[in-house]
Amino acid sequence: MIVFLKSDTSHQRAQELASSAEAFLISGPDGFVLINSSSVKTLAPQLEAHTRDFIVFADDLQLGSKKYQSQTREISFGSFSIGGNTGNTVVMSGPCSVESKAQIESSAGLVQELGLKVLRAGAFKPRTSPYTFQGLGTEGLALLSEMRERFGLTIISEIRDGSHVADVIAHADILQIGAKSMYDHAILKACGKSGKPVLIKRGFGTTLQEFVQAAEFVLSLGNPNVMLCERGIRSFETKTRFTLDLCGVAWLKEHTNFPIVLDPSHAMGYAYGVPDLARACVAMGVDGLLIEVHPEPGKALSDASQQLNHSEFRQLIASLHPIATAVGKRIC
Amino acid sequence: MIVFLKSDTSHQRAQELASSAEAFLISGPDGFVLINSSSVKTLAPQLEAHTRDFIVFADDLQLGSKKYQSQTREISFGSFSIGGNTGNTVVMSGPCSVESKAQIESSAGLVQELGLKVLRAGAFKPRTSPYTFQGLGTEGLALLSEMRERFGLTIISEIRDGSHVADVIAHADILQIGAKSMYDHAILKACGKSGKPVLIKRGFGTTLQEFVQAAEFVLSLGNPNVMLCERGIRSFETKTRFTLDLCGVAWLKEHTNFPIVLDPSHAMGYAYGVPDLARACVAMGVDGLLIEVHPEPGKALSDASQQLNHSEFRQLIASLHPIATAVGKRIC
Amino acid sequence: MIVFLKSDTSHQRAQELASSAEAFLISGPDGFVLINSSSVKTLAPQLEAHTRDFIVFADDLQLGSKKYQSQTREISFGSFSIGGNTGNTVVMSGPCSVESKAQIESSAGLVQELGLKVLRAGAFKPRTSPYTFQGLGTEGLALLSEMRERFGLTIISEIRDGSHVADVIAHADILQIGAKSMYDHAILKACGKSGKPVLIKRGFGTTLQEFVQAAEFVLSLGNPNVMLCERGIRSFETKTRFTLDLCGVAWLKEHTNFPIVLDPSHAMGYAYGVPDLARACVAMGVDGLLIEVHPEPGKALSDASQQLNHSEFRQLIASLHPIATAVGKRIC
Amino acid sequence: MIVFLKSDTSHQRAQELASSAEAFLISGPDGFVLINSSSVKTLAPQLEAHTRDFIVFADDLQLGSKKYQSQTREISFGSFSIGGNTGNTVVMSGPCSVESKAQIESSAGLVQELGLKVLRAGAFKPRTSPYTFQGLGTEGLALLSEMRERFGLTIISEIRDGSHVADVIAHADILQIGAKSMYDHAILKACGKSGKPVLIKRGFGTTLQEFVQAAEFVLSLGNPNVMLCERGIRSFETKTRFTLDLCGVAWLKEHTNFPIVLDPSHAMGYAYGVPDLARACVAMGVDGLLIEVHPEPGKALSDASQQLNHSEFRQLIASLHPIATAVGKRIC
Repeated sequence: MIVFLKSDTSHQRAQELASSAEAFLISGPDGFVLINSSSVKTLAPQLEAHTRDFIVFADDLQLGSKKYQSQTREISFGSFSIGGNTGNTVVMSGPCSVESKAQIESSAGLVQELGLKVLRAGAFKPRTSPYTFQGLGTEGLALLSEMRERFGLTIISEIRDGSHVADVIAHADILQIGAKSMYDHAILKACGKSGKPVLIKRGFGTTLQEFVQAAEFVLSLGNPNVMLCERGIRSFETKTRFTLDLCGVAWLKEHTNFPIVLDPSHAMGYAYGVPDLARACVAMGVDGLLIEVHPEPGKALSDASQQLNHSEFRQLIASLHPIATAVGKRIC
Repeated sequence: MIVFLKSDTSHQRAQELASSAEAFLISGPDGFVLINSSSVKTLAPQLEAHTRDFIVFADDLQLGSKKYQSQTREISFGSFSIGGNTGNTVVMSGPCSVESKAQIESSAGLVQELGLKVLRAGAFKPRTSPYTFQGLGTEGLALLSEMRERFGLTIISEIRDGSHVADVIAHADILQIGAKSMYDHAILKACGKSGKPVLIKRGFGTTLQEFVQAAEFVLSLGNPNVMLCERGIRSFETKTRFTLDLCGVAWLKEHTNFPIVLDPSHAMGYAYGVPDLARACVAMGVDGLLIEVHPEPGKALSDASQQLNHSEFRQLIASLHPIATAVGKRIC
Repeated sequence: MIVFLKSDTSHQRAQELASSAEAFLISGPDGFVLINSSSVKTLAPQLEAHTRDFIVFADDLQLGSKKYQSQTREISFGSFSIGGNTGNTVVMSGPCSVESKAQIESSAGLVQELGLKVLRAGAFKPRTSPYTFQGLGTEGLALLSEMRERFGLTIISEIRDGSHVADVIAHADILQIGAKSMYDHAILKACGKSGKPVLIKRGFGTTLQEFVQAAEFVLSLGNPNVMLCERGIRSFETKTRFTLDLCGVAWLKEHTNFPIVLDPSHAMGYAYGVPDLARACVAMGVDGLLIEVHPEPGKALSDASQQLNHSEFRQLIASLHPIATAVGKRIC
Repeated sequence: MIVFLKSDTSHQRAQELASSAEAFLISGPDGFVLINSSSVKTLAPQLEAHTRDFIVFADDLQLGSKKYQSQTREISFGSFSIGGNTGNTVVMSGPCSVESKAQIESSAGLVQELGLKVLRAGAFKPRTSPYTFQGLGTEGLALLSEMRERFGLTIISEIRDGSHVADVIAHADILQIGAKSMYDHAILKACGKSGKPVLIKRGFGTTLQEFVQAAEFVLSLGNPNVMLCERGIRSFETKTRFTLDLCGVAWLKEHTNFPIVLDPSHAMGYAYGVPDLARACVAMGVDGLLIEVHPEPGKALSDASQQLNHSEFRQLIASLHPIATAVGKRIC
């Protein structure tokens, strides 16, 4: 249940009401808002005198639902925005991992050259096997911050576990919660409190229901800047790394107000399929793409097989513009 | 193993060689061709004197592989073709089932109005539950034949089990082998021998490996006119009816020479997602779409929730043209 | 809806009523019974005068549901039965395919030696790849019939497509509908009309809902002798061939009245895991097992990796007896 | 690659060698052992003089593989052990969450009454939806510690995210890493360093490959006390909560040396199926079970549908003893 308190309700009173009703308190555009579990179906008596309006929900999709707000939420990255009326489809590109200064400079230069605005790269790569490259860590984050200054780019980087949440929040402009971390409530909480734009990747074994619940968790902490990223789920098919769930994207577009970002690189796992899939995603009118591109994919320290080289990436971006135009969008 | 016999080999001799080598015999553009199991890795001694060339394969993808023929195979429907150099993306549309003369006339009129060339509809609908509508049967096929005559359309209809194979082969221009029938070797064999264009739908629990093996089965009987149709696979996600596997489509495009047709209607299961998914498929440069459209979806006797109404379908087709243009294709 | 007609209703009248109500007619223990689609929720007026009782169902599980008959249905194989109060867990064993007289004699001898009663083997093996062994066909069926005569065994063999339905019905005592054929309504219909015991294998992409619908289809044709066989479903895990769904078995035991047979050989795909899984199945109190055993598994023409050798099989059967005893069952 | 250093190698020298070879250093029963990535296939030159023996592995299953140690590793919980030659199948039971002192006392009493030794209960329940019960936290851990003192029980409790790792390590005897946390390397690391017995639950979207990699991560930090827990994976079937992967268990038993614990409660999601599944697991000869039992399941604050009541649990345990005996095991 979402309860809109009357506009003259004080912050202190709102906090008391939230506490007595076991509800989350957030600050909405027209005053304070309480959010209860979806299992709460009736207005608590003590709230009646202070309530302007309320909505009862059938499930845990509340603040993120089209019923609460019909237009896709607009999220600002400082110099530009996505969602809302912007018509922007943002391409967030760069290597899987920051590997060296020369490598990330090369990537940043490519992004700038093509008129794109967001650079992506991971600093923490604690991968499944303990015996492989684990990322540059804080040194990687420092390199990303340097790229922001020199190239004027917006930086997105991933949080993988609780040991480096504060570091990523300090250095990145967009906080990426990884597919393997999206059930971690300590991370969701830290991101919720940071107020920064958050991109939540769907776990590869995660239902759409759980996916939007993770997003609701961040919203319930007062951070409205949440994007959802579909990056492939596990199915029985193993000739490709994962199965990109565009039916699921159609469901998210119909039922939620979150901007949707697609990651064809991780879904496919092989560079050859990424351009076709990226074009498919843009034709669906999504709000963003995450694309892995590397100066020398064959030498990449992680995810070598799925990263495009610079030439392939330039061709891909060129091919995306007319499709974006055809569906009323603009690549940026 | 594929063995190209010398061009002067007689039909009788070719048959003897095929028999002695336990191979299939087909007639290729430059003479007879023998096809053995992929487990055969060396040329049988008796073949040596008659062999022009041969290819050894690692798996069961042989005649359908890009290694055998790098260009997508061209398939003619009489008045037009797909695949090859045609640049055509054919839209095959119509209702899930033929329900009445008035209904199928309305559909045929719509297809013609929009400049499309193929009408789809099922006559046999032996559905999972025994207690529901099972299709009009041969009466439905007769209605489809009537539409072909009156509207000049190409007809595609589905074979669901062995009891009506001959009927569908007699009436339809394109033979659709359903997702639930694609392991049926009696059906595959009958379609292989018919020589008519065959569209094989991927089972919802079928790996890409098994999918191309079913297609190879038809090819090995001498029918080169095989198309593959991705229509959604089963995953753990149940908010949509199936999960459209576009990563799998990217794999098929990379490794096989089959024209690829996509069926977003069955994948999604809900009309609201079909237009977005259809646009995504066209942006991938596929060779065809199967779209369910019904004069009154709410009254459809099967698959009511996923069929577009005529107005939605007109809008969809209008939106597909610029995307097709953007990827060098033409909707027909 | 299931409608129990009054005991004095004549066959002709029952047929007229069935026709007017678009219902299936079967002959129950206490008179004629009509079965309608589960979407029919009210008694048709013309039935009222002839109706003794009726049950409305929420879904397509009707005759097979515990609500219709709470005890597991008893199925007789002539010399013995399973289900009901029998306490029997039948082991149906033998090679994947009949390959030669010597091979199937060896298998029949083993089955007899261990006091078991059912011999299994496939005669038709139209496998996914067109370029591999396809079974001995009718010659295989004749060999199985010979084994029945000589060893006094009950024979189960599989129907794979419409081209050999009549042959298998003529030769086998138990009709096995394969995982790839269970949506084929022509096969289901022929088995329904035969009256012989039918074992339906769950497709590897088949939901429990569709599984019981296939069984209902056979029941609705008047054949009550239906068993269900879980043989593994497809999941994302590929280190084993399939994933044996024992949670699904628990659901079937709770909600349906079908005897349940388990096939650990196909589920696992590797002989090493079959004994442990077979023991697990027996401990669940199931009604039967299908186990593949071959005189020389390494030389088997199909499914070589998953067949036990005779020594392994003897040890397995010995280990099953005390577990069966522990759960109140008897291996036969 | 695993390298066994000569027994006279000093700790300091072993550390230098590990550092120069980018290997993990652990202390084995016969001296120091270095563990490299499985991609390292040749002995580094500087190691040669100090190496007693080494093993090259094909994949990331190294210390946990049967090739490294053929017998299941023995893990001690103080008063008793599992694995090795013990023949013990430990039942770890209790409620999903600690809810109150009365509730957990009741559970502890039941465990003691039945001669069992391990009490399970969660203190941190940061569940997917933000709007539901999140556990008693440290107060719950304190109650569990109190139960250990009063009832002489071994306590297992779950770590869900990085915010309470230290608390659980301080209070629990067995550290349970939850299905949603098993990719969290900060948690794996903390558990690895603690030296306490660790039970890793398989994520519901996790391959067996990734599962054993998580376990290897803990082993590589010098903690040999790792158990694996299968608790159901996600498949397309949704009539049960998850799909218990006993084929996967057969694979783990064949290829790894980890004790295996099964959690039928979470897999099934409904109490009615738990006893049958628990019996199946015991018949496979596994090393442990995790069973949820609650004084009043209908009033449970989490997972209400899948918890057994005390009466059902007593019957279950009684039925497990003869099955355990049949497979040479003992319930404790």
